[in-house]
Amino acid sequence: MSYNFLFCSSGRRNSLLEIFKNEFGRQGEIIACDFSEYSPAMHTAHKRYTVPSINDERYIATILGICMKNNVKGLTTLIDPEIELLSKNQRIFQENGILVFGPSHETAKVCYDKYSTYQHLEKNGIPCVKSYLPSEIRYKIEEFISAGRPLFAKPRCGSGSVGIKKIAPHEALEAELYTDEGYVIQEYMSGEEYDADIYIDMISEEMVSVFCKKKLSMKIGGADKTISVKDERLISLVDQVLLAFDFAGPIDIDFFYQDGEYLVSEINPRFGGGYLHAYGCGVSFPKLILNNMMGKSNPRELFQYEENMVMMMYDSYLIKRLDEINRVVKG
Amino acid sequence: MSYNFLFCSSGRRNSLLEIFKNEFGRQGEIIACDFSEYSPAMHTAHKRYTVPSINDERYIATILGICMKNNVKGLTTLIDPEIELLSKNQRIFQENGILVFGPSHETAKVCYDKYSTYQHLEKNGIPCVKSYLPSEIRYKIEEFISAGRPLFAKPRCGSGSVGIKKIAPHEALEAELYTDEGYVIQEYMSGEEYDADIYIDMISEEMVSVFCKKKLSMKIGGADKTISVKDERLISLVDQVLLAFDFAGPIDIDFFYQDGEYLVSEINPRFGGGYLHAYGCGVSFPKLILNNMMGKSNPRELFQYEENMVMMMYDSYLIKRLDEINRVVKG
Repeated sequence: MSYNFLFCSSGRRNSLLEIFKNEFGRQGEIIACDFSEYSPAMHTAHKRYTVPSINDERYIATILGICMKNNVKGLTTLIDPEIELLSKNQRIFQENGILVFGPSHETAKVCYDKYSTYQHLEKNGIPCVKSYLPSEIRYKIEEFISAGRPLFAKPRCGSGSVGIKKIAPHEALEAELYTDEGYVIQEYMSGEEYDADIYIDMISEEMVSVFCKKKLSMKIGGADKTISVKDERLISLVDQVLLAFDFAGPIDIDFFYQDGEYLVSEINPRFGGGYLHAYGCGVSFPKLILNNMMGKSNPRELFQYEENMVMMMYDSYLIKRLDEINRVVKG
Repeated sequence: MSYNFLFCSSGRRNSLLEIFKNEFGRQGEIIACDFSEYSPAMHTAHKRYTVPSINDERYIATILGICMKNNVKGLTTLIDPEIELLSKNQRIFQENGILVFGPSHETAKVCYDKYSTYQHLEKNGIPCVKSYLPSEIRYKIEEFISAGRPLFAKPRCGSGSVGIKKIAPHEALEAELYTDEGYVIQEYMSGEEYDADIYIDMISEEMVSVFCKKKLSMKIGGADKTISVKDERLISLVDQVLLAFDFAGPIDIDFFYQDGEYLVSEINPRFGGGYLHAYGCGVSFPKLILNNMMGKSNPRELFQYEENMVMMMYDSYLIKRLDEINRVVKG
């Protein structure tokens, strides 16, 4: 029996796909698809396909076709805008024996929109970074000016730090220039940033693995230097978050540590860009995924890593002939 | 005899240092220094040191000390602001048997300032991207508005695409908000972007190797997808540029192809971030550097690579214990 796994929207995640190839060994092939045949990660997979845009009505049928042709038993996506789409179509995949490693449709919708995420966290009494719609700023204006902290306008549905704009405290009303549909306004956080890579078992629905890290340095798109930490307080906050959502598979939560407490900043129900750090410290999500694909649940084993391990990112490269790239098959 | 080589300001250039380690083999060790012990590239070198800031008066003495202690025969820097400093102190290194792989002091000064680069190119009749000081815009305003092209305000001494701001054509006068000391204003180029990695032999002072590529996709800091090309017209433009400057060692020139002609856009007299592509196609600058360190000049061998080879970059990672990082020796 072969447990083949499909990465949708593989992009530049070569290092993650290499990890899967190592961990799956002979137990399954790693297949990748992307809109562009110039996805470098696709070229490190055992098999690769180009697919229509995720907004194309043929998308799900195409992915399903790739799964059937390649005996795929599990799949996940590496980009935020696709999470909701896959979750919405979970049943079609399940009926064909394919596990979708991603959240419920409801959770996917809430997490994709930063303002909905905020509302949901607030409703559940979970400490988080305060967020406002641009139109709400007017009613809070004196508070912001007297606090003297800058604000941030963030795309409601953006990834990473793309499109974030800073607003000086005395110009807080400028926030109204942004549309409620497109942006949320958040207070500037000066505290340290943390991040947790979490695996929610597909069978037991429990958190079975977690890796916590502090961010040491940021680049566009995420932290490029992190250090492993262990903190029970962070885990109890994670536990609160997990109760309020319906996650499954790998997730990534960002936190600020501000004025002596952890605040949830963002939730990505997919493999975080910094998961590489967890793997490098012995926390193997691919092994957990493989077990789940085999119908086995995983035991809860938190904190199975060393503290004070530092990860540093750098640019690597892959070279392919143009004719090889052009030969990538349409899914 | 051991031909040890030092990288100053090694930063995140792990892939480049790995290439040097491969190419030097047993003929020499690769040593790295950086202001920060969190430079991931430093941790891939055979030996590593932290050093003061390049603005610290002890900097050159520290570098020289590292060279003497480690029998270093050649060095280069990987960041723009250090090129001029090393070139100014070339003699001290040479007197101690150490080759500085970098331009003359005069050329270093001209290349570090985008406006000086522009003036120098113009003076030498070399086709290039027109550049203005913010205070000159007033006298060109009608031209800009009628051309209907946006302008770009670029830091005069910035690296990569950091700090670049777009100005709409009808708001061209906004360019005056920038200081002449800090910015140049360039016309927006819509054409394709090209790049050449060039090696100028330290002994013959000739261009002995060149690798040309077209940029397929850009990220902050440089192109993350490129394709190899060969074009004699690009080489004759490179020849013109080389006559007007006093380069030595590895350099990197950026071009636009606009309205049927190549225009020089930027000159970096150091290893470009995209040199990895050249190496992956068999164009080994480390071999040329090693020959020069041995006192041998290199034969001119242009176009020793295949066209239509595509390079795609992605994030890789390195993990170290904090105590190992803290144990990096001060140079």
